[in-house]
Order: sequence, then C-alpha cells, then structure tokens
Amino acid sequence: MPMAKKDIGKEALALHKKLGGKIFTGLSKPIKNRADLSLVYTPGVAAVSSHVAKHKHEAGLYTIKGKTVAVISDGSAVLGLGNIGPEGALPVMEGKAALFKTFANVDAFPIVLNTQDVDQIVETVVAIAPTFGGINLEDFSAPRCFEIEKRIKERLDIPVMHDDQHGTAIAVLAGLINAAKVVKKKLEDLRIVISGAGAAGTAIAKLFLFAGIKHIILLDSKGVIVRGRSDLRGHKEDLADTTNPHGVSGDLHDALRGADVVVGVSGPNIIDAAHIARMNERAIVFALANPIPEIMPEEAHKAGAAVVATGRSDYPNQINNSLVFPGVFRGALDHGVKHITEEMKLRAAKNLAGLVKKPTAEKIIPTPFEKGVAATVAKAIH
Amino acid sequence: MPMAKKDIGKEALALHKKLGGKIFTGLSKPIKNRADLSLVYTPGVAAVSSHVAKHKHEAGLYTIKGKTVAVISDGSAVLGLGNIGPEGALPVMEGKAALFKTFANVDAFPIVLNTQDVDQIVETVVAIAPTFGGINLEDFSAPRCFEIEKRIKERLDIPVMHDDQHGTAIAVLAGLINAAKVVKKKLEDLRIVISGAGAAGTAIAKLFLFAGIKHIILLDSKGVIVRGRSDLRGHKEDLADTTNPHGVSGDLHDALRGADVVVGVSGPNIIDAAHIARMNERAIVFALANPIPEIMPEEAHKAGAAVVATGRSDYPNQINNSLVFPGVFRGALDHGVKHITEEMKLRAAKNLAGLVKKPTAEKIIPTPFEKGVAATVAKAIH
Repeated sequence: MPMAKKDIGKEALALHKKLGGKIFTGLSKPIKNRADLSLVYTPGVAAVSSHVAKHKHEAGLYTIKGKTVAVISDGSAVLGLGNIGPEGALPVMEGKAALFKTFANVDAFPIVLNTQDVDQIVETVVAIAPTFGGINLEDFSAPRCFEIEKRIKERLDIPVMHDDQHGTAIAVLAGLINAAKVVKKKLEDLRIVISGAGAAGTAIAKLFLFAGIKHIILLDSKGVIVRGRSDLRGHKEDLADTTNPHGVSGDLHDALRGADVVVGVSGPNIIDAAHIARMNERAIVFALANPIPEIMPEEAHKAGAAVVATGRSDYPNQINNSLVFPGVFRGALDHGVKHITEEMKLRAAKNLAGLVKKPTAEKIIPTPFEKGVAATVAKAIH
Repeated sequence: MPMAKKDIGKEALALHKKLGGKIFTGLSKPIKNRADLSLVYTPGVAAVSSHVAKHKHEAGLYTIKGKTVAVISDGSAVLGLGNIGPEGALPVMEGKAALFKTFANVDAFPIVLNTQDVDQIVETVVAIAPTFGGINLEDFSAPRCFEIEKRIKERLDIPVMHDDQHGTAIAVLAGLINAAKVVKKKLEDLRIVISGAGAAGTAIAKLFLFAGIKHIILLDSKGVIVRGRSDLRGHKEDLADTTNPHGVSGDLHDALRGADVVVGVSGPNIIDAAHIARMNERAIVFALANPIPEIMPEEAHKAGAAVVATGRSDYPNQINNSLVFPGVFRGALDHGVKHITEEMKLRAAKNLAGLVKKPTAEKIIPTPFEKGVAATVAKAIH
C-alpha cells in the first residue's frame, strides 16, 4: 500500500535532516602523504594546469569537466510548489544530482541562483560553465525558460538542456509510441490535445511535430491556442502558427472532440468523464500533473480510456523525466555532443520505447530502475 | 630523495588523465528502489522544499549548504603560472577541494569562471551563493582580489575568504610566532621586511599589524613602499600609511638593514647572502616563493640565518595555506560564523603555532598531515 502523502513528507524531512545533504564530495584518489599531495596538488598539479591551459579542449580528460553536469535552478517553478526561490529548490536539485549518479553514473552538482533576472541568469550560467561538461536547467518558469535556454545554448559549446521541457517531451513521446501500438493506431495520425502550454506542453508539441504528428491542439489557461487569438505572445504565437491546423477554438471540451490522445501537463482534476467521452474510441490519456493528475486513472478508465499514464509511481505507466535526463547527459558526455538536437531527442524516445518489448495498456514505458534505460537513451545522443 | 620537478609533472599528468577528475559526487543514501526515490525525490522532497523555502536559515540543516564550500577562481593568478584562465585553474581548484575533504572533512566544489571582469565576478559569486555554506576565493590576481573579496563579503552572509591572502597570512604568522621563540625575540618587537605587496604580502602585513607588530616594511617590484612615493595607488597607498613608520626608502638592500625577519612572497632568487648579512643576528628568513624560493635554505643558513622556512615540502618548515583553509571553513561551518574576522585569524595562527610544543629551528610549524591541525584552527573560528 502506498504511503500517505503526509507521511512521506514527514519521513522525507526527517531523512534529509539526518543526511544533511544527499550528495557528498568523494576523492577519486585518497591523499595519504606528501607524495600524494605533491601529485594532486603543488607542485605536480602545475604541469596539469599548464597542459590544460594550452589545450583547453582536453580539459575534460584531466578534470571533473569530463564527467560532471551542473543542475541549475532559480527556484521559480519548483515541482508543484511554484516560485519558492533558490533555498527551497536546493533539495530538489540535490535529488536530481543523486538520480544522475544512480541511473547513469553522471556526476552532477546542484547550483541554485539567487537571481530571477533573465540577463543575469544567462550571464551567471555562462560564467560558471568552464567547470562543467553539461548544463541541466531545471524548474525555470515559462515563458522565461525558453529565452534562458536559447541564449545559454548560443553562448556555450557544451550540451545545455532544460529538462522540464525536453526530458519530459522525450519521456512522453516514448510513452506515446508504445500507447499507439497498444491501441493499434498510427503514431503520425493521432489527433492529440495537450492541456498546458508551459515548458512541458510546448516542448512536447514541438517534439511531436518533429516526429511527424500533424494534429496537435494546445490549450493554455484561457483556452485553445489558435491563430488569431489576440492575447498570444512569444512562444504561444509560434505554437498557434505551427499547431491546430484546422483552427479549432474554444475550451478543452471543444478541443477533445474526436481526439485520440489527451496529454495533461497543467493541473489537478481538470479532466472529467465527460471530457473523455468526447474522445475517439481507445483513447489515450496521459494525466501528468503531479502529485494530483488531471484525472485519476480509475476514473479515466471508467470513462472509456484504453491507456492511462500519470507522473505517479503508485500507478502503472509512470511517465517521468528521470527516465531520460541521466541517459541524455551520459550520452552527450560519452560522445562529445555539444548540442542536443531534435533528431537526438526523437531517437532517444524511440530507444526508450523500444525497451518495452511487448507494450500493453499497463506497460507502455520502463521504470527508471529497469536495466538499460540510461544506456539506451545515451545511445541515441550522438 | 625528492622526485625531480619534471618527473613529478609527468607523473601528475598521467595520474590526472587516469582519474579524469580528482573528486566525484557520492550519494549519502543509495537510491535502490521506488521507496528511496519517493523520499529523496518526488513526492517526498516537496515537504523538504516547502520547509526550507519557509525557513531559509535552516537550509544548511537539510541540504549540502551546511557542509559545502565553493572553491572559486577566475584563473588570473594560478600558482606560479600567472593568468592561465579557468580551464587551467580547474586542476588546482579540484586539488584544493580534495584537500578540504582530506584535512577537515569539508565538502568542497570547484567553480572556475570564464570572466575576469570584477563586476561580473562579484555578481556571479553572489548569484550562486545559495548552494554553499562558504566561499573560498582562490588565485585571483592583485589588486583585483581586494575589491572582489570586499564586495562579495558585503553582499553575502556566509563566510568568504580569499585564501591566497588570509590562509597564507595565518600560516605565516603561526610560523613567525614559533620562529620568534626559537631566536628568543619578542614577536611584537620584530623588525620585519616583506618582499612582495600582492595578495599574500598585503594580507600578511595587515595580520602582523593586528598582532601588534609595529616595524613592518613592504616592497613591491619598484622598491620600498613608503609614504610619499608618487606611484602608489589603492591598497599600496593604504600600506604606505600603515607600515614603514620610520619612512625608510630604497630597495631590498636598504630595507633589510637591521631587520630581524624577511618574508619573501615575491619571486625566485631575489635574496642573496649579502642581503642576509645586513640583517640582525639570529635572522629569520621565510622564502615562500614556490617552487623556487627567494633564497635556497642552504644558502640562507650559510649566510647566517637562524630559522629558514619555505613553501616547499622537501625542506623543513613548509609554510603552506593547506595548514589553514580546511580548518577555517570547518570552524566557520561548525560555529555558524558568517564573517571571518581579524581576531579569528590571529587566534587561528596562535592555535596553529601552539600545536608545535617545542619549536626548534627545524620545526616551527606542523605539517598538514599532523593530527589536530584542522581541529585547532577550526577551534579559533568562532
């Protein structure tokens, strides 16, 4: 029986206090005497510094740069908690660093920022980048996250990924590839509604488009995103241009008529049985809001959904970016990848889906503890 | 027999390549299954994030902030190598992080900056500070280092220390306390010449003044620093105001007449036997330039010096800041110290000196591997 939420919180708080930090700094080689000291520090280290300064592209061979990713957040959109600032974000970023190590043997270090100014965030991340082999951006609020990621990517020659966008998108696409098989529909022909046009919804839509899916409708809190809606700016204007080919307008109810798939990346309990009833036969429901999904799996099934996935570990089909980010950076580090492209993300989703040999309604996606998850994702990043 | 410098460099290069990073990220608690995951990550971590966001001063109790120090450099003054940039600085900062762990069980993480703009350095360090319980600034060139440290200290409520200044000054004062005992002179009455008015020389002079030493003369590359010298600016103008009470002018030769102590923090081979001959009986010579001191110990002794110290591990009396910085931050973290004061530094020097029960000409300072070094320094930081 899953532990009640309140108890998990209490136990987590006690554990964190006991640990005083979920990660620690270990030594690759213990320093036991002067001879050790003279090799890892002065005078021996001078030769290493001179060499690396002359051959900057070799820094990763001689330092932690070759194996270490920064997990960076400004605390502006932490879990479902919102803008709680850097201190509140730190436990999550530490957890993320721990997952990097656990699932893909990537060393990761959390950096939380006490600024939420976009220019200053960009400058800060660029300034500290020489230490790292990759940058995982985390829990930056939309729409700021789009500009922040874009500008940092332009300035650096190491892989930079906003995981709330792309980790999520890859995991969702992997799940959808197998869900389509289960309901015997062709991926490219699926009519998809995405509720939520923030970081995750936007990235999911873009990756779906790249995967050849044409019928995608997004909604934000004000309704369907459609060309001509007068309040659209920035990335939502772009979404209006690239999605919703038939110009559907209205609300979720309107959007879901004849849909094969609904992906919820918005908030708790916004989908009900009447919504599902408007969808096509053998509907696919990804209700990914966490911890309370857009619709509970029992209810979705009762309303006729054929495949249901959530972000929760206590139901089947947990779609979670921890399936993705460790492998993405493992692959980028191993293969010297400087920019993570749409091709790589699509390959990663296909590889991840491929790990489930015989998808069923209860099993469209591996769990993070299954063997080969990070490795198959890593293989795609080249 | 000490290994030749070239061989040490070669061996260090090979070792670094084999290790691919001298530190690694370890997990305080292994993540073995979903139950672990739900405590260190979602959903359990949400309770920790909420708590810490509400009680920011408790961040150190629940996260790595309570035990982790950043070792930050812009690579502008690395060892004796000069301005070699961030990549070249990284092996040194990693080494430093390894020493923090080895000597004081302080978790430390290297951050090298790809900017050398003072404003941007200050903003960057301030921006990333929420992750850390302390900031060790390292290998920033003078005079920029003074402004950088001052401005960062003003902005943060965690301990910030430029180790090239204060770590060195504490170690030197500790050595001098015992050297004075060996030559049976009173510390406060010593007439001291400091060759070098950069980061180390300036901080040494200030700490000596705070310790009650009155007769201090500093030299930079243009000669004695004395009030009225027309080319003095910034911190050197301050030094002219606070040192050299008798207004001595000229070069090292002039300054050393009647001196009891010479502290070299400048460069190789600038002191010779004729210089030592001008000093008082039972002269103390700290020739700290590394790896080649201002004068080799054999030569200094031959010229009449009673106590000689260097920065080298292959001679007696190695004065090195690795005796100091691990304990300083250990103490600051343990005692919740937000600002490291002159009083604390003086106490640290006295404690460190006190570890040598019976100082002799060959033993004025402990080695970093001696028991109790970090603990006695830590005890002073409160």
